[in-house]
Amino acid sequence: MSTDILISEVGPRDGLQPIKSIMPTEKKNAWMDALYKAGVREIEVASFVPAKMLPQMADAADIVRHAKTLPGLTVMALVPNLKGAQAAIEAGVHKVTIPVSASAAHSLANVRKTREEMIEEVKRIAQYRNDHAPQVKVEAGIATAFGCTLQGLVPEDEVIWIAEQVIAAGADESGLSDTTGYANPAQIKRLFRRLKSAIGSKAGAAHLHNTRGLGLANCLAAYEEGVTSFDSSMGGLGGCPYAPGASGNVVTEDLVFMFEAMGVKTGINLDLLFEARKPSLQMKTGF
Amino acid sequence: MSTDILISEVGPRDGLQPIKSIMPTEKKNAWMDALYKAGVREIEVASFVPAKMLPQMADAADIVRHAKTLPGLTVMALVPNLKGAQAAIEAGVHKVTIPVSASAAHSLANVRKTREEMIEEVKRIAQYRNDHAPQVKVEAGIATAFGCTLQGLVPEDEVIWIAEQVIAAGADESGLSDTTGYANPAQIKRLFRRLKSAIGSKAGAAHLHNTRGLGLANCLAAYEEGVTSFDSSMGGLGGCPYAPGASGNVVTEDLVFMFEAMGVKTGINLDLLFEARKPSLQMKTGF
Repeated sequence: MSTDILISEVGPRDGLQPIKSIMPTEKKNAWMDALYKAGVREIEVASFVPAKMLPQMADAADIVRHAKTLPGLTVMALVPNLKGAQAAIEAGVHKVTIPVSASAAHSLANVRKTREEMIEEVKRIAQYRNDHAPQVKVEAGIATAFGCTLQGLVPEDEVIWIAEQVIAAGADESGLSDTTGYANPAQIKRLFRRLKSAIGSKAGAAHLHNTRGLGLANCLAAYEEGVTSFDSSMGGLGGCPYAPGASGNVVTEDLVFMFEAMGVKTGINLDLLFEARKPSLQMKTGF
Repeated sequence: MSTDILISEVGPRDGLQPIKSIMPTEKKNAWMDALYKAGVREIEVASFVPAKMLPQMADAADIVRHAKTLPGLTVMALVPNLKGAQAAIEAGVHKVTIPVSASAAHSLANVRKTREEMIEEVKRIAQYRNDHAPQVKVEAGIATAFGCTLQGLVPEDEVIWIAEQVIAAGADESGLSDTTGYANPAQIKRLFRRLKSAIGSKAGAAHLHNTRGLGLANCLAAYEEGVTSFDSSMGGLGGCPYAPGASGNVVTEDLVFMFEAMGVKTGINLDLLFEARKPSLQMKTGF
């Protein structure tokens, strides 16, 4: 089925990340199955981080194994460093995504590395991929690209500079993340335009949050600027634990509704998407 | 102070309309004072309808009298017919707004008149204005312009036809209202473009609802299409009692935040706008 845009579901990773109670592996699998059935064809399924830091993600390798049984699904995982990337690639992911903060303060808080160290990490990951798994895609998402609760203003020149650096380091694509929900539609258009002019067809997804209610308006602005790949989370779950005040992602259901209503094909069936809420909603009652 | 757009607060009319408990006149006045202090320069203050139909609006003339003490404020009232317009003009409003439904079914449910009868009513109101109060502006807002919960699809040709008719009948401007929250950004752009091409500079405000969460995205789309006048309601209060499922208006606070963040001047101070929530929020506790 041909679609106009790709909606990439980040619920199982970004959505669950700030949730304290741990969703059992079989529930996560049922959730992914239901998302797949609804037409979702890319899922950020887990984060490869030490289990003691994020117990919610301790079953990452099992989750990848299950997700890979779904034909045509792009199985993506977040990796903060080379070690995580090695584990993710060993588990069989199709794509790794590395968060590289544009905010110096958020970089230290989130991954305990400077931005320059993270660019080096991207280089190591890309080299490892080239040597061991050339079919795996490497994405570097620029976190806090629109502002940061720790640092405040994030200069646009630095955002574009980092995107150029991660592409030079070997990433296949680089998108922009509004980790803390600072973005407004004018800024979205300006920055995605600059990104495209800097890295061309390697400009990647819009990963936007709904912290101040502008999530959908910002996605619309990104779409109008030519962005065709959007991260979102079922029910708007999510938020970075290391960025104070960061709350939920753009709501997948709202995003699908908006685009489909506009005649923009997402490939996702809204009724079946609502069905997929059922396993995930059981989280509220302790699964 | 020069502004880029006009945000017209409809809370005291559209917002209170579906609320059963009656807000005392002095609370409404305090609310309008606070809105004015925040920089709001147009308020739809009341609806001139029989008090037995909408007891919430029984004090309409008193409300207009108070609102007129605020220098530079455009005092607007909704009027469903000539009798209401006469009462509103007698009370001293600067502007009357007449809802003319594009949906035949909603027209009968809302004002118990056909669309053609409502166009005749606009003609009578414009004539009365010409004869008795030429300084008063007459606006005819096209209700259910983007779809209707009673009728379903509302043909775009009919929406534009009605807008042309109300202008021919003597209205100074005609905007489009998404009474039931059906609109999507693509439709907003298409229909406002057609409206402008049909009635030129008499194309009026976007009156959008947030029923399906697309309120802000739709306002952004309207702005991008050149609309500079937006209706909204503090806290998103509102909804038409005669359109099943119609829920709240676009939230004034969100709209001001979005536009100011984009660098679009609204003339409204967000901190003072939050102050204005205080009297209105007392509604929840029975005033």
